[in-house]
Amino acid sequence: MSTTYDTIIIGAGAAGLSAGIYAGRYGMKTLILSHELGGETAQAGVIENWPGDKEIEGFKLIFRFRDHALASGAEIINSPAVSAIREGELFHVTDKAGAVHIGKTVVLAQGSRRRRLGLPNEETLTGRGVHYCVTCDGPVYGGKTIAMVGGGDASVKGILLAAQYASKILFIVRGNELRAEPVNVEHMRALGDKVEVLFDTEVKEIIGTNALEKLVISKPYHDSTDLVVDGLFVEIGAEPETDIAKELGVILDEYGYVKTDCMMYTNVPGVSAAGDLVNHFGHFKQVITASATGTAAATAVFGYLKNARNEK
Amino acid sequence: MSTTYDTIIIGAGAAGLSAGIYAGRYGMKTLILSHELGGETAQAGVIENWPGDKEIEGFKLIFRFRDHALASGAEIINSPAVSAIREGELFHVTDKAGAVHIGKTVVLAQGSRRRRLGLPNEETLTGRGVHYCVTCDGPVYGGKTIAMVGGGDASVKGILLAAQYASKILFIVRGNELRAEPVNVEHMRALGDKVEVLFDTEVKEIIGTNALEKLVISKPYHDSTDLVVDGLFVEIGAEPETDIAKELGVILDEYGYVKTDCMMYTNVPGVSAAGDLVNHFGHFKQVITASATGTAAATAVFGYLKNARNEK
Repeated sequence: MSTTYDTIIIGAGAAGLSAGIYAGRYGMKTLILSHELGGETAQAGVIENWPGDKEIEGFKLIFRFRDHALASGAEIINSPAVSAIREGELFHVTDKAGAVHIGKTVVLAQGSRRRRLGLPNEETLTGRGVHYCVTCDGPVYGGKTIAMVGGGDASVKGILLAAQYASKILFIVRGNELRAEPVNVEHMRALGDKVEVLFDTEVKEIIGTNALEKLVISKPYHDSTDLVVDGLFVEIGAEPETDIAKELGVILDEYGYVKTDCMMYTNVPGVSAAGDLVNHFGHFKQVITASATGTAAATAVFGYLKNARNEK
Repeated sequence: MSTTYDTIIIGAGAAGLSAGIYAGRYGMKTLILSHELGGETAQAGVIENWPGDKEIEGFKLIFRFRDHALASGAEIINSPAVSAIREGELFHVTDKAGAVHIGKTVVLAQGSRRRRLGLPNEETLTGRGVHYCVTCDGPVYGGKTIAMVGGGDASVKGILLAAQYASKILFIVRGNELRAEPVNVEHMRALGDKVEVLFDTEVKEIIGTNALEKLVISKPYHDSTDLVVDGLFVEIGAEPETDIAKELGVILDEYGYVKTDCMMYTNVPGVSAAGDLVNHFGHFKQVITASATGTAAATAVFGYLKNARNEK
């Protein structure tokens, strides 16, 4: 006989783990299905803006969250949820390994999926020269030349980290300015010649069969649109992972994020959402905001259970 | 000649200090006027729900925030703001010591004033047996006996949560009825003997030197006006400190909190607000939500300055 959880939290980034900490403390029987432990936070490299910690590795911060959630009584299973449906008053959540978990409520906290360039060869060369996470794959490029596609804060922070390994970084920016935090741009400028910014430039082709050979770019660099690099990193944003939200009938907002009230409660009874799935602070999506929305989302489903109990 | 700050943050609790961390990192010349260093957080005693720290003294967490804000370049002056007015495009903020500070923007983060009983020993025993927040401090009382002073919805909801930890709760109510939402009162009644309501009763004295020893109440309970409890929770309301907001022409919401958009921006150009002053997570007001709204409020005024610069 399967356990019935008071809540199943889908996602184990800053939002999901913070929800787990609060749900556990509320005395709820809590399961966290880890999509990718740590989400964006674990891959962020050095984090300098988690209040109270001047400098901490993202994965270390996530391990602190995880330990806190476990200490609060939450269970964590390292298999991502692939489906969730409502059966009567209960939710059946299926994970990638095929196990079905039963919960009275669900907290959606899957975060977002990195955006890709959408070019031929991009998918087949992913992990073979094409990458989306400097923290994960940067160390492979010690002494090599890489390209970074981006322009926002994530890409600049990626370059700061990549510079610890790569000898040369070509920063390919579609527009004519950087949209990153000034302090991070300053750090990047301080790297000098190691980083060259190619403004008003796009990647048109990714060339290679078993490994990345070169890129073709829209504007000549040193008189050529062929750009030979050892690795390509893409940091052009992310899209919320709303497949399970949609499956549950959760309404999205005009930008494709989960629509919630101020307590992160969705239109579906028993379902709340948090982190990069919601727009509670508009485009401002940080570890601290993900964590705060996670604690509210846990509080929302706790309130739902208390009321449900009363109605009987 | 006085310095012109990019932003003056009024308040140095979790919200104000988090705003200071972000503002400093944005390269803004930042002044924090400390009303009462640490605000509610510093007085919370042991905090078990700051994600990533299983257990930390509130004042220690606040010192970490303060150090982080200072390291980010913010200045802190330990004199609360008593007035703020707009003079042309600048804000003139006067502190209690009479100094006038000039800023291009203002972040309001004064928090709220918890209503206290106004008894001797109440202040010295705060965090040592006397508490104002069950979510923060309730878990410390596992298996213990506590008293709750209140009668309104916040106190009843506090009891519902406290009941997950405490073995016995004595609910001290001045009048002869509860002013809480009926659904919450029903939930409370469902807890049976665990909760006893002492109507027409007031706390007359709080006894204890380094820790709470007992209360003296106005009406005998089990033939005695001495009431020995492990902890006392006071939930008789809080009021947001909106005097300066009103002076600046900031619009309040129907509950008397500062009205903001999703980035904590108020109706007054150059003024944002955060923490217990805003209702961004409804009645759910925690260290983590205060901190998150603080980071957004700093980001809001940073955006305002960038736009102002662009317009010239």
